[in-house]
Amino acid sequence: AVRRQTEALAAPLSVEDQMLQAMPEASPTKWHLAHTTWFFETFLLTPHLPGYAPLDPAHAFLFNSYYKQLGGHPLRGRRGLLSRPSLDAVHAYRRHVDAGMDRLLEDGARAAALADLVELGLNHEQQHQELILTDIKHALAQSPLAPAYRAGPPEPAAPAPAPLGWHQHEAGQQLIGHAGDGFAFDNEGPRHPVIVGAFRLASRLVTNAEYLEFMQSGGYERPELWLSDGWDLAPALGGAPLYWARRDGRWEVLTFAGRQPVALHEPVCHVSYYEADAYARWAGARLPTESEWEVAAAGVPVDGNLLERGRLHPLPAAPGAGAPAQLFGDAWEWTASPYTAYPGYQPPAGVLGEYNGKFMCNQMVLRGGSCVTPRSHVRATYRNFFPPHARWQITGIRLAGDAV
Amino acid sequence: AVRRQTEALAAPLSVEDQMLQAMPEASPTKWHLAHTTWFFETFLLTPHLPGYAPLDPAHAFLFNSYYKQLGGHPLRGRRGLLSRPSLDAVHAYRRHVDAGMDRLLEDGARAAALADLVELGLNHEQQHQELILTDIKHALAQSPLAPAYRAGPPEPAAPAPAPLGWHQHEAGQQLIGHAGDGFAFDNEGPRHPVIVGAFRLASRLVTNAEYLEFMQSGGYERPELWLSDGWDLAPALGGAPLYWARRDGRWEVLTFAGRQPVALHEPVCHVSYYEADAYARWAGARLPTESEWEVAAAGVPVDGNLLERGRLHPLPAAPGAGAPAQLFGDAWEWTASPYTAYPGYQPPAGVLGEYNGKFMCNQMVLRGGSCVTPRSHVRATYRNFFPPHARWQITGIRLAGDAV
Amino acid sequence: AVRRQTEALAAPLSVEDQMLQAMPEASPTKWHLAHTTWFFETFLLTPHLPGYAPLDPAHAFLFNSYYKQLGGHPLRGRRGLLSRPSLDAVHAYRRHVDAGMDRLLEDGARAAALADLVELGLNHEQQHQELILTDIKHALAQSPLAPAYRAGPPEPAAPAPAPLGWHQHEAGQQLIGHAGDGFAFDNEGPRHPVIVGAFRLASRLVTNAEYLEFMQSGGYERPELWLSDGWDLAPALGGAPLYWARRDGRWEVLTFAGRQPVALHEPVCHVSYYEADAYARWAGARLPTESEWEVAAAGVPVDGNLLERGRLHPLPAAPGAGAPAQLFGDAWEWTASPYTAYPGYQPPAGVLGEYNGKFMCNQMVLRGGSCVTPRSHVRATYRNFFPPHARWQITGIRLAGDAV
Amino acid sequence: AVRRQTEALAAPLSVEDQMLQAMPEASPTKWHLAHTTWFFETFLLTPHLPGYAPLDPAHAFLFNSYYKQLGGHPLRGRRGLLSRPSLDAVHAYRRHVDAGMDRLLEDGARAAALADLVELGLNHEQQHQELILTDIKHALAQSPLAPAYRAGPPEPAAPAPAPLGWHQHEAGQQLIGHAGDGFAFDNEGPRHPVIVGAFRLASRLVTNAEYLEFMQSGGYERPELWLSDGWDLAPALGGAPLYWARRDGRWEVLTFAGRQPVALHEPVCHVSYYEADAYARWAGARLPTESEWEVAAAGVPVDGNLLERGRLHPLPAAPGAGAPAQLFGDAWEWTASPYTAYPGYQPPAGVLGEYNGKFMCNQMVLRGGSCVTPRSHVRATYRNFFPPHARWQITGIRLAGDAV
Repeated sequence: AVRRQTEALAAPLSVEDQMLQAMPEASPTKWHLAHTTWFFETFLLTPHLPGYAPLDPAHAFLFNSYYKQLGGHPLRGRRGLLSRPSLDAVHAYRRHVDAGMDRLLEDGARAAALADLVELGLNHEQQHQELILTDIKHALAQSPLAPAYRAGPPEPAAPAPAPLGWHQHEAGQQLIGHAGDGFAFDNEGPRHPVIVGAFRLASRLVTNAEYLEFMQSGGYERPELWLSDGWDLAPALGGAPLYWARRDGRWEVLTFAGRQPVALHEPVCHVSYYEADAYARWAGARLPTESEWEVAAAGVPVDGNLLERGRLHPLPAAPGAGAPAQLFGDAWEWTASPYTAYPGYQPPAGVLGEYNGKFMCNQMVLRGGSCVTPRSHVRATYRNFFPPHARWQITGIRLAGDAV
Repeated sequence: AVRRQTEALAAPLSVEDQMLQAMPEASPTKWHLAHTTWFFETFLLTPHLPGYAPLDPAHAFLFNSYYKQLGGHPLRGRRGLLSRPSLDAVHAYRRHVDAGMDRLLEDGARAAALADLVELGLNHEQQHQELILTDIKHALAQSPLAPAYRAGPPEPAAPAPAPLGWHQHEAGQQLIGHAGDGFAFDNEGPRHPVIVGAFRLASRLVTNAEYLEFMQSGGYERPELWLSDGWDLAPALGGAPLYWARRDGRWEVLTFAGRQPVALHEPVCHVSYYEADAYARWAGARLPTESEWEVAAAGVPVDGNLLERGRLHPLPAAPGAGAPAQLFGDAWEWTASPYTAYPGYQPPAGVLGEYNGKFMCNQMVLRGGSCVTPRSHVRATYRNFFPPHARWQITGIRLAGDAV
Repeated sequence: AVRRQTEALAAPLSVEDQMLQAMPEASPTKWHLAHTTWFFETFLLTPHLPGYAPLDPAHAFLFNSYYKQLGGHPLRGRRGLLSRPSLDAVHAYRRHVDAGMDRLLEDGARAAALADLVELGLNHEQQHQELILTDIKHALAQSPLAPAYRAGPPEPAAPAPAPLGWHQHEAGQQLIGHAGDGFAFDNEGPRHPVIVGAFRLASRLVTNAEYLEFMQSGGYERPELWLSDGWDLAPALGGAPLYWARRDGRWEVLTFAGRQPVALHEPVCHVSYYEADAYARWAGARLPTESEWEVAAAGVPVDGNLLERGRLHPLPAAPGAGAPAQLFGDAWEWTASPYTAYPGYQPPAGVLGEYNGKFMCNQMVLRGGSCVTPRSHVRATYRNFFPPHARWQITGIRLAGDAV
Repeated sequence: AVRRQTEALAAPLSVEDQMLQAMPEASPTKWHLAHTTWFFETFLLTPHLPGYAPLDPAHAFLFNSYYKQLGGHPLRGRRGLLSRPSLDAVHAYRRHVDAGMDRLLEDGARAAALADLVELGLNHEQQHQELILTDIKHALAQSPLAPAYRAGPPEPAAPAPAPLGWHQHEAGQQLIGHAGDGFAFDNEGPRHPVIVGAFRLASRLVTNAEYLEFMQSGGYERPELWLSDGWDLAPALGGAPLYWARRDGRWEVLTFAGRQPVALHEPVCHVSYYEADAYARWAGARLPTESEWEVAAAGVPVDGNLLERGRLHPLPAAPGAGAPAQLFGDAWEWTASPYTAYPGYQPPAGVLGEYNGKFMCNQMVLRGGSCVTPRSHVRATYRNFFPPHARWQITGIRLAGDAV
């Protein structure tokens, strides 16, 4: 099902769309289709399926992303120059590897022994499902035609969400991080105690209407609101979230269904950490730490506007119940926490040790998933991470503050 | 026939190959197919065919190359990001414009009045035929797979050409530049007198064997051989012509049929002006001026290893007769002449004035055509031009010297 | 005394030396002399001394470092282009402001009210004392002459320090951060509880001998040892700490007394966070968190090879007593902790809010001071911070690990 | 006298001013003082004065500009980082070499044999006299204080020059280039015949008033006026000549005496070739070729607003007599001629072959000298050259056209 879902996400795109790469950080659709397949070939079939023959031995090099211990890979920024293998050949590669996986898993004992690796491969592929969408959005946005990923009728205007409220949390020692039976990435553990002061968390994400108020009050021109690195970057931000443009006196935003007027009640997204942080300061609040976020989200069901909803765009917050709304889905929430190792963290031995650990520098943690995250992929302990200047992911703002 | 030839050159390439752009100077095949069509639409159909309706009004912007007076165009380095219109749509655009041209030319009087513009459009398209080949060679060369443009059996080894000899020319006043009835670009005129001192011109192009001798004698490490700008660039040149690579102790070169051993008797090509100039100095000679070249080529039939030969790669020089061999075809010959206006030159009025005149700075003149130049496109007065650092065209070396 | 110390540090340098700036991060000596003075003028004299007249009103703009709320300042990377005011004029500026400060503090009530600001100004100046030394070291290092900051006899060879041992610490809840009466920067507080697992801390800093072993075992070429950003940077690191160079088969290092052979028993310094982290991984250890470091340093007297010792270069570790050696002085110790706000941290209101808080992103915390840090300036709670790629500060490596 | 003149030009500058370098193309005053001295040491004293001992053997490397055959030199853009040797030490170097030159020339036979080299050294030093002034102007312009090179009373307003008229020249074969006994650089010869069509040359330089008209008519925004490379550069030009700035509704220009209102009747200067070329096109004219210029200047006395006049700034044209006014002095005149070798040109053998020949690419010829050129240094055959984007020299515009 995961493998099919990947292909379904690519299906609306032409052969030529699937070639596009407009910056090193975002990869072509075709590359995602191939790289997720390479993962199964490299870590499961080649070492564990006797007699496995690759469809093409060049794939081992071509579709390696960043595993330096494997010897080499194409430069990240040049993935868009791989016209060959063709999209057809990449689909054949997928079928070849899927068939190999079928053979591998026929043997029950072997399947059991490799179950963790298979599950990692599927979760890896889910990560790339999200990237297929965010990366093609970035690539199509470069076109003067601003083509839509898919057609879609405009949604009816949503009613205004409830005013932003606060959920209070008492101070105390808490446990965060993953433990137990389900799948989690290595970077989610070990589960460990933290001390969390009394804090409050906003009842929903910041809306476009609220963010516009920040913009209109000169938010992008007031240095006292900004981190130093953010202020240096500010002239390149264009005074608005990514994909916003002013046309004929009103703000439009690029969605997967093409250009749309900015919907005031939807959560703001495509903001960098710097913008999220500046907005919070302007609002007299701050961003939550990842500990605070996780404490608030513990026990909240993983539900909301996620990939399966099919909307592919944030939705206005529904009236909240006991817990803060929109904790899962809609938009990844920047936290105030740099991405570092939890106490006692050890990456796995060998090549897969490069999966998460080596990125624990110069990145900020995001929590909660977005409208393009598969539901089965996210959880309260999930730690996403991006550099603070990144804007092409679907990233939004949840306010927090010390308890009052 | 010209229009069909363009499509025939693109035919061996996949939809994905035709998207590739690896540097701003080289454009995707699909873009060449569209831009040459745009030229006829913009300069003929839109102004001169009553009732002409464009297939898509966006094409006017999308496929403008550099005509600033038309208002705008995509950045040259981002042509590879145009996944849309698709290749199929571009072919439909070609058919739409071709049909428009048929209608335009049905009226004999109108056809006669526009004949010069039509001829310009066809010569423009021939220029892009050459670029389709040199640009895709550059793009495919970036792939770790080094795919071939087309399959081809290796040619049998050629016999060594005759030793390099010299053709002597006496000093005198000469006329250069185009005059008369046939087509020529504006930059080839006016025909005008020049004083040319006594000179000698080499009987053929410099071969790979001769260039290897330069390399092996430390040619890339001897500053006294180089122009200052070339010496500053030398560390980036890799100590060899573009597309050369050393594998297992021998030199290979990328051709349109894939990697091949360097054939010693073929003309060296893919060298910059800096390398050509340094080689000439090393050889105790110099490059010819464009006046000298044109004086020597005047009256020589346009024949040789040109596009129609189908080789797409330089050939060893055949035994020469009265005139220097290889003046036409094989490889464009760097001259010592910067590309400037001839005395009395005036670009045409209006937008087409941007065709040639605005590039008369920071470029060097090349003469004679290459193995990928259509025969009907080149002549003794033809002035090609590229910046001195350019290497991705099929550019070679003809030696000259003062008469002895 | 602080003001005089600054001038004493500049005294060995010529007028021309004091102009040098070789990268944006490092400033000219003359600029440091002026900027520290500007601080007193801007935050004390102008707002608080009635009738104060600046020596030159241009100074307010010229010597502002990065306080955006004051309106503007020269670009950081162009401080070396300020030939005027001359060094003499900057000294006159210092005297002018010092005289103003004398007048300001004559009034006891006013002096008391402003004591915190004055203390901040003095601590600010001490920070720049360290930077005067590290910045001129960087600038002089660019000269082909590699001139010495000051002459100095080579020290006698030191005996090998004791083998690296470990100090064990039990797990528990601890308080870190500054509280109490003495001066501290805003970023050192609030004091707050943290949970620290059982850990061990190395008995001394890593030596050059140990680091050479890392280098010789291919440490710079093994990707599994490196953070991703560090690995991308590695080709630019030269395979050794900054200021190391191999001459005639042996390693030399640039010191304030000129080039010297690398002394094996001295602590390694001028390494980036990436190198410190890779070294620790190679050694089967890790870097300490700032909490761990502070827990270990709490109660340890601030003593060691600091600025007052006059050595200006790390010394081999003396035999340790109960506590780890070299916690203070010798070299700043990279911690594994990104520089973030402590819980409840609020920058001061107004312009001085830009002093520390806006840098809390993309930087790592360093602890303990170096051989060019004034003794009265450092303490167990002191948080220094630099980007992970920075190498021109005197930065070294203390190993840590989970308790065994 | 030449050597003293160099020092006199540096005299108004402080030790710190003489350190400044704000771009690679412009060098510090101190470097000019040392490099001109190095020239005599390297090419005269070391090879020809028996027993000559250098003051410091490091100078041979430190003050080499670009003679690659000598083995190496500091990067051009880092000359400003040489705080040592000090200015005092550079003056001692000058005295040491001058004393050596005195000894060298005591021997009449030796002096005669070396006279050409000595004369080259003096002309070389005169070139650097002009650069001392243009380079320090550029460096001081970076300061927010915009300090003056020297004080000077504003000149009384000049009367408007006569309307721009034209001097007609008939077509014919002409000789250009240097021949005869006086000194000339190698690039001025050999004297050779050229064919020059009938042309006309403007009676004076273009004035600021005329250039303002071009600016106000949108000259910087009309692509049809510009060369392609110039148009790409235009956004960086600021819509005005270098050193112009608009203050309180009027244009000011930086002069050696500080900021002054733009004087309408003075020649415009500090324009690039691109601006000169665009202006000429806008004015319905063109720039002269260097042949045309030299034909017009042949026989005209070298007189005008040159360095000895002491003005250091262009002056309004005096009423012209038979010849065009301002051919010598005021501002270098961009010609339409790329800088190439004259027919039969051979650079001298050995290291001095690098003096001129290796720069014959990507540069345009300028003629006639400027207000900071020594009178004895310039002549009708003199060929100055700079890249077309260069603006920090005192470069102006002389119009030309085909004869009417």
